[in-house]
Amino acid sequence: MSISGKNLIAGEWSGDTEGGFTAINAVENKPMGVRFADATEQEVETAILQANQAFDSYHLISAKKRAQFLRTIGEEIIALGDELVDMATAETGLPVMRIEGERGRTVGQLGLFADLLESGEYQGVIDHADANRQPLPKPDTRLGYLPLGVVGVFAASNFPLAFSTAGGDTASALAAGCPVVMKAHAAHPGTAELVAQAISRAISKCELHPGVFSLLQGKNYGIATQVVTHPLVKAVGFTGSERVGMILQKQINERPEPIPFYGELGSINPQFILPSKLANQASETAQALVASLMMGQGQFCTSPGIWVYIDGEGSEEFEAAVINAISDTQAGVMLTPSIAHDYKETIEHWQSLPKVSLLAQGQPSKAHFCSAAVFATDFETFKKTPALSEEVFGASALVVRVANLDEMLAFIQLMKGNLTASVHANDADLPLSQSIVARLVHKVGRVIYNQMPTGVEVCASMNHGGPFPASTDVRTTSVGSEAIKRFQRPICYQNMPHALLPELLRE
Amino acid sequence: MSISGKNLIAGEWSGDTEGGFTAINAVENKPMGVRFADATEQEVETAILQANQAFDSYHLISAKKRAQFLRTIGEEIIALGDELVDMATAETGLPVMRIEGERGRTVGQLGLFADLLESGEYQGVIDHADANRQPLPKPDTRLGYLPLGVVGVFAASNFPLAFSTAGGDTASALAAGCPVVMKAHAAHPGTAELVAQAISRAISKCELHPGVFSLLQGKNYGIATQVVTHPLVKAVGFTGSERVGMILQKQINERPEPIPFYGELGSINPQFILPSKLANQASETAQALVASLMMGQGQFCTSPGIWVYIDGEGSEEFEAAVINAISDTQAGVMLTPSIAHDYKETIEHWQSLPKVSLLAQGQPSKAHFCSAAVFATDFETFKKTPALSEEVFGASALVVRVANLDEMLAFIQLMKGNLTASVHANDADLPLSQSIVARLVHKVGRVIYNQMPTGVEVCASMNHGGPFPASTDVRTTSVGSEAIKRFQRPICYQNMPHALLPELLRE
Repeated sequence: MSISGKNLIAGEWSGDTEGGFTAINAVENKPMGVRFADATEQEVETAILQANQAFDSYHLISAKKRAQFLRTIGEEIIALGDELVDMATAETGLPVMRIEGERGRTVGQLGLFADLLESGEYQGVIDHADANRQPLPKPDTRLGYLPLGVVGVFAASNFPLAFSTAGGDTASALAAGCPVVMKAHAAHPGTAELVAQAISRAISKCELHPGVFSLLQGKNYGIATQVVTHPLVKAVGFTGSERVGMILQKQINERPEPIPFYGELGSINPQFILPSKLANQASETAQALVASLMMGQGQFCTSPGIWVYIDGEGSEEFEAAVINAISDTQAGVMLTPSIAHDYKETIEHWQSLPKVSLLAQGQPSKAHFCSAAVFATDFETFKKTPALSEEVFGASALVVRVANLDEMLAFIQLMKGNLTASVHANDADLPLSQSIVARLVHKVGRVIYNQMPTGVEVCASMNHGGPFPASTDVRTTSVGSEAIKRFQRPICYQNMPHALLPELLRE
Repeated sequence: MSISGKNLIAGEWSGDTEGGFTAINAVENKPMGVRFADATEQEVETAILQANQAFDSYHLISAKKRAQFLRTIGEEIIALGDELVDMATAETGLPVMRIEGERGRTVGQLGLFADLLESGEYQGVIDHADANRQPLPKPDTRLGYLPLGVVGVFAASNFPLAFSTAGGDTASALAAGCPVVMKAHAAHPGTAELVAQAISRAISKCELHPGVFSLLQGKNYGIATQVVTHPLVKAVGFTGSERVGMILQKQINERPEPIPFYGELGSINPQFILPSKLANQASETAQALVASLMMGQGQFCTSPGIWVYIDGEGSEEFEAAVINAISDTQAGVMLTPSIAHDYKETIEHWQSLPKVSLLAQGQPSKAHFCSAAVFATDFETFKKTPALSEEVFGASALVVRVANLDEMLAFIQLMKGNLTASVHANDADLPLSQSIVARLVHKVGRVIYNQMPTGVEVCASMNHGGPFPASTDVRTTSVGSEAIKRFQRPICYQNMPHALLPELLRE
């Protein structure tokens, strides 16, 4: 199979790759061979118009057929074999095992939504007529769900498969009955094209309208603007930085018609280590935190970025174990040169902050690799230093030593919205855990006990989202089966003859 | 019981009524006795701060206790007796029977949410741990719901009870566990105060924090701005005009933190009369449409504003019946002088539009009363005249004569979002009904067969909302039990000991 470098516009590969851009081989830090075409204004327009055309037929196919389409995408992704793994590892620098795991998750996600469709869930509510009701008869009313229409999706740099071309947003939008116009991430365009090839084959095999899925390549920001402001685009899914997310949110706010924007933005995922846990399992907890921090070189939205403990028994052991574990870590390649650059700049800046100490640093390596870093400070300094509340994208964490429970609660009070937070505690910590969890729930989308925040389960009870700025719509999740609801809306059928009802609402 | 004219700020009646405003007795078109105080910036701030204080305890009380609170509000509203009915009829000009019906609906709505809370619905999803799962063990994850926090609600002019002080938005927010800061509508401040007195008594009886509910009176637009832009306000419910709704939306868009805005705006609720229905039940259908149009003097968001039929057998009979029925209607008082003024101005403007004829007009009466009006035009003129697609708030309708099914479908294509639309059809119209309903569903929140759009059932399968501009968030309903979801958000508990789980998520 070959990479064309082109855009997939409703079944046609198009675009002029000469003026385009190349991917970077992350490990080698060198441009890769193929050039990719920036999608033109006309191509974006065609993709959206064709998606809207496709909506007419796509949203009417049976849930069973839609499930079959999702499973076929999964099969076609698996059929890409090693070429996909090789491409994704080259473009992102992520190790083979991680990419293989992520591929499994991506296919699993597609299967989860297929299961959901086949189970007939979310079919609605039926309230029968009651001619004798007083003071007025009750009409027959039935609540169903309709897909919103064309969905624009933006791929994430850090999950080239699970949050990209056929990732969670695409899977849930397609499951809901919405065609997808996907903006690939410029950090892994080859991976995106391969997966788009797989989707395109699934569309052919299932005999669907080719407008159901388009892939836009590009480094030009105008593409994003055109997608999110287009009148036919009815919802947008995005995973990325708060900075870019807020630019898109602002553009969406200027639309005449408000549409939902599902931005999954940054998160620092605070970790609270309670006194008995600290006194009894300091080293073990420190090692587990470092292992979680090092996953994907810290480039996870659920990476544990702040570790808060009450100074006391176990403190020294904890910090010694952190220093030990971090000092042993190897430097690693980052997803993109610009992420590496930003990471290094931040680490340098933090080293210049008053009363913030560099507790430990990982092994150095090649110039474009990054080493882990753990800083430490006290609560007073944390309060006075806004930079310390910002997400550092990479394997950096901050230890905040608080004096007592009150300071820990004050820390929670200061917290912005996060995707997750963990409480690390023993039975003896239960009363404290209770005070902490009671406050923490209002700041996060997922609260975790004695487990690490990395590794997001894909299931019906998952919530991956959180109060702003963790996400732009706290009422929704981007992971798990509830994600489908983001792309549906209710509709009531009143007094409708059976022949005019959707199948799921008939008796 | 007496009317103080003051604001209810977390249990305290406060405000200087001297500089305030008076309500207008609608029928007499004269200012009423009591002066009402415009809420000051300080009062608004206190109301919001106290609501946020109240959130801490209020959201933790049991579902059963919250249900009891809602029922107590209902009992206290009934205990207001005739004073409430007299006040509401005086302030709005709506007849006693309508106000009594609306009171029943308001109390019924509170009961619906109480039932919902007692039934334990929406309690969440539990996925147990699986230590043997490959490649990694599955943690225990449980999905629950948290209330968003303080909710700002704006009362509607046209439903002084059911969409105002203790109306649907308030009932669903309180049911969800959110304190409410309510901006009363200046058209019925006395009614608002009486209902606020009832809520205040319910708060005392149930021993809740008084910040759970505050009532702000006022004609000063700054109050609205202060509420919707306040960082502690986490969601806003609004029922009113598209113009005011979009001003609030814009202010909300400028917040650093995005919050949901549930604006239920205008709707023209098109009615489609199909050929066999027209040929066989022309008069009956015309009379039913006129009766629906005249409800509340056309001041319903579900008022049937456009009647579309395919010119053919029955057309003449239909229009003759419309003329007959409309000519017999009595002029009526409008909710406010400014609504009356706007209605008259629009009717006058429409009479000047080329190729738009005034088909029929109701009886004239006093200067401040308004008469019904039905206009007629063809599809070409409708297409070229944007004014005809705007909602006219009052008893005015437009007959659009289309030449054939294609024009009817083209009409649907042109339609903006609406709350509802009805198809009036016989069995012989079934194939046409199918084509029409298939397109109509994407333009409305509720599609109705052979019934009138007025009269919104309050039940689990209702949807009152629709594509923009019918509402600002098409994914939600402001009527029925699903309305509670607007004020909740998901939260996942991972690996949590039972003692730290909310009761509903324990085994």
